[in-house]
Amino acid sequence: MVGILQRMSGLRAALRYLSAHRVFSSTARARLSSAGLCSPVLTCSSGQFLFSSRQVHAGADAPKPSPSAAPERLPFSRVTLQDLDFFRKVLPGRTITDPDLLESSNVDWLKTVRGSSEVLLRPQTTEEVSQILSYCNSRNLAVNPQGGNTGLVGGSVPVYDEIVLSTALMNNVLTFDSISGILTCQAGCVLENLSLYLEERDFIMPLDLGSKGSCQIGGNVATNAGGLRLLRYGSLRGTILGLEVVLADGRVLDCLTKLRKDNTGYDLKQLFIGSEGTLGVITAVSVLCPRKPKSVNVVFLGCETFEQLLQTFQLCRGMLGEILSAFEFLDSECMRLLNTHLKMSNPISDCPFYVVIETSGSDSTHDGEKLQNFLEEAMNLSMVADGTVATEDSKIKALWSMRERVTEALTHEGYTYKYDISLPVEQIYQLVTDMRTHLGDQAKSVVGYGHVGDGNVHLNVTSPAKDPALVAAIEPFVYEWTAKRQGSVSAEHGLGLKKRNYIYYSKPSQAVALMGNIKAMLDPKGILNPYKTLPDDLK
Amino acid sequence: MVGILQRMSGLRAALRYLSAHRVFSSTARARLSSAGLCSPVLTCSSGQFLFSSRQVHAGADAPKPSPSAAPERLPFSRVTLQDLDFFRKVLPGRTITDPDLLESSNVDWLKTVRGSSEVLLRPQTTEEVSQILSYCNSRNLAVNPQGGNTGLVGGSVPVYDEIVLSTALMNNVLTFDSISGILTCQAGCVLENLSLYLEERDFIMPLDLGSKGSCQIGGNVATNAGGLRLLRYGSLRGTILGLEVVLADGRVLDCLTKLRKDNTGYDLKQLFIGSEGTLGVITAVSVLCPRKPKSVNVVFLGCETFEQLLQTFQLCRGMLGEILSAFEFLDSECMRLLNTHLKMSNPISDCPFYVVIETSGSDSTHDGEKLQNFLEEAMNLSMVADGTVATEDSKIKALWSMRERVTEALTHEGYTYKYDISLPVEQIYQLVTDMRTHLGDQAKSVVGYGHVGDGNVHLNVTSPAKDPALVAAIEPFVYEWTAKRQGSVSAEHGLGLKKRNYIYYSKPSQAVALMGNIKAMLDPKGILNPYKTLPDDLK
Repeated sequence: MVGILQRMSGLRAALRYLSAHRVFSSTARARLSSAGLCSPVLTCSSGQFLFSSRQVHAGADAPKPSPSAAPERLPFSRVTLQDLDFFRKVLPGRTITDPDLLESSNVDWLKTVRGSSEVLLRPQTTEEVSQILSYCNSRNLAVNPQGGNTGLVGGSVPVYDEIVLSTALMNNVLTFDSISGILTCQAGCVLENLSLYLEERDFIMPLDLGSKGSCQIGGNVATNAGGLRLLRYGSLRGTILGLEVVLADGRVLDCLTKLRKDNTGYDLKQLFIGSEGTLGVITAVSVLCPRKPKSVNVVFLGCETFEQLLQTFQLCRGMLGEILSAFEFLDSECMRLLNTHLKMSNPISDCPFYVVIETSGSDSTHDGEKLQNFLEEAMNLSMVADGTVATEDSKIKALWSMRERVTEALTHEGYTYKYDISLPVEQIYQLVTDMRTHLGDQAKSVVGYGHVGDGNVHLNVTSPAKDPALVAAIEPFVYEWTAKRQGSVSAEHGLGLKKRNYIYYSKPSQAVALMGNIKAMLDPKGILNPYKTLPDDLK
Repeated sequence: MVGILQRMSGLRAALRYLSAHRVFSSTARARLSSAGLCSPVLTCSSGQFLFSSRQVHAGADAPKPSPSAAPERLPFSRVTLQDLDFFRKVLPGRTITDPDLLESSNVDWLKTVRGSSEVLLRPQTTEEVSQILSYCNSRNLAVNPQGGNTGLVGGSVPVYDEIVLSTALMNNVLTFDSISGILTCQAGCVLENLSLYLEERDFIMPLDLGSKGSCQIGGNVATNAGGLRLLRYGSLRGTILGLEVVLADGRVLDCLTKLRKDNTGYDLKQLFIGSEGTLGVITAVSVLCPRKPKSVNVVFLGCETFEQLLQTFQLCRGMLGEILSAFEFLDSECMRLLNTHLKMSNPISDCPFYVVIETSGSDSTHDGEKLQNFLEEAMNLSMVADGTVATEDSKIKALWSMRERVTEALTHEGYTYKYDISLPVEQIYQLVTDMRTHLGDQAKSVVGYGHVGDGNVHLNVTSPAKDPALVAAIEPFVYEWTAKRQGSVSAEHGLGLKKRNYIYYSKPSQAVALMGNIKAMLDPKGILNPYKTLPDDLK
């Protein structure tokens, strides 16, 4: 205890330093941007891929096709020269057919799904999108709407020869209201560009993702992206105020409201948030942006048990209250991987669990004091075994990297099977424990990390090489385990191509049937992003 | 300026007192509960009613029926003795046909819409609701789902002889997770009861309304209620995590997820939030609840211009940041009404505009300091002409009442025409100014007050008595003015019966048509809450 208190005295000094010297750390904010799950930088260690293109397309590795394998091509029309003539007339110089230029649009970021599209369309305006869709619908041509193509479930690339409709050139900010903090912009604006635009105006985007350098706001909305600020600013369901959407038949649905309150009829925009481009193409977005925090602090703590970690979370919510902006965790297996593969040393003493806490507030002195009071209480109540506070930018960066680089460390461990599970927060680590028991010696390692604040655990199982027997031991065990506890088999990644057939583990058949009705209502020919989101038995 | 600074010094002393002595003021919270727009206490000063039953039903005061008048009865079946037998079998002792007992269910809170239902059903379980709707759908019997019946747009009462389906007996809390703050409960739980339940557990509901003593959470969700905490905790679109809904044909849609993140398919629950009982009957709710704030402060300020008021809001958002929980305003006409009719004296010197600011935080010392710094800055920048801070509960209550009792003061002014308009925040007061100019001497007074933080103004025009010529001068001017600025003609009250035909002022015809498609998909016979929300031309 004396040792802990001595350390606490060090923490206090650090906090005083923080309070006195730091107003706003741009480095700390930059750290945030790389803590997400998807990154635009492609690390091609081949052993890391969950699915090969062949596997997804033909289920070649198993007698019975995997539920993630692509279904047969649906009877859409094939693109003709006449079609190309039309597209070139609407989009002169922006109708791409060069295979080299199409390559990056045909392959997803994980390089696990490869389409064979021969046309990439790059509209600049909503009117152009409307003309394209109206034409494609009349011609029964399938369309794959594509934003930054940073998705992880094969939702953002063509599966066969769907026309790729990229929003990349629709990248203008339309309006920004510095009183209300409401931004409207075209769908193709890159998240990082929006963040920079807003930070110059003393605001921030309500979401932040590792892929911010590539991902586009339209894609973020279409996939209902979660990310690092959800604990603090809530989901896009609340922060997206309006959308402009082009429907499958080319009709433009203007719900681009810039209002915090509007109870005139059904909230249609919600249909398109998280629909992964299967119900319409989002062309513009209106979003409520928070003020830029003036003070950011980061702490790294160790806990002896997951129960203590949960108690710490509870205490933290109470004592840090309005300034808590992240509560992330990793287990000792993650720390071992960081030590072994990335030569990163543990900044505190060895513990079974580690926590990264971030605060964002409007007064650095107050934030520092709240953090100090919380740490004292957590120590006094023996919830926390050890901890350290960042006093300078480089240390802040180092602390965040203990959480952020787990994914990278895993790529060096062998073949990794990844699951993104949402559960009642009390149960998120039980999945890891039960999986360990269930697999025994079959797995090389079973590790858990993720967003405690959001009840979202990233379960990773590694093996020296690809191992169908191991997959058979993990699945459907992991899905059944999750379903039994009313969890979600896709917390933030969506269903896309790969997970579409697992939907029943998290949604009752009545709900899935209703989703099918909505799809049929909005896109009766099914031309928008086919083979995605909805299970095969609905098609 | 010296006077101002002397006053500021008084403010500082008050803040120090606040910091030192107040931890959490239950009175301050109670004040919040009565600041909303709907109140369960019926004040029957007849001159205050916008619509008379006759007017709404028959448009008797004008040759052309008002857009708010009820359409002809649709050809639903009439309730037979056989139907009653069925209901009594499913709901023994809870099938009400006594006209006296039905009276309160047939009339809305404003006493402006009166139905003639002869059956009130009071189910206790989802299964009972399912049996009732399945039966009614097969028999083509219209159903009016009813919660606390506190709505202001005639959405919560039958228009003709619809069967009233009350959720009042579905009032059980199902689960509460004190780590995540996620509550699940039946739809009929009264908001205040849920608040009390949560406060005992150190949490609060994310919404608070004046009608909390009567309104039910199911009705709150069905109407997407706004209320007093929206500025801080966001809309129900973000805080409602799951719903259980019974569809028109009796199918139970179980989307009662208790997860912060779930990206498995379309978010169906959003369809039912704000659909005013026209798409399904909400039977259970899962909601994310914030921690109870430990410290609450209230300030009353005066501004010389609305531009200064907006500058004050901007400064406030920056300096109070995460602890700002309300920013409400009233104009000098409101103050005159308070003085004249309620003998309430202005706590500060006379100003054209007044602001009520509330903070809610986790540390009273910090909150007091933030408030003090903000006030100093606002004074130094001459944004604020005068102000006072509450140092004790009675004064806090008195300050809040300056905002809350405007509605009551208006009832003494004569006949009042009320509009609940949402606009880009810069423009909310321009509507009041323009209306004053537009009406000239025709109106007795034109007053504005409301939620600056939400861009929501309550425009009220008074006259000595009911005045059709005045209405003709106000409408459609007010709706056209709002539409021209992309505002909403119903910020938080919904459309119900009274406003259904004004929907086109805030929604394009493509969107309204799509709403009609959704209604037809989910309720093909149109038995659920007919004559509400959607305009007559869709029916």
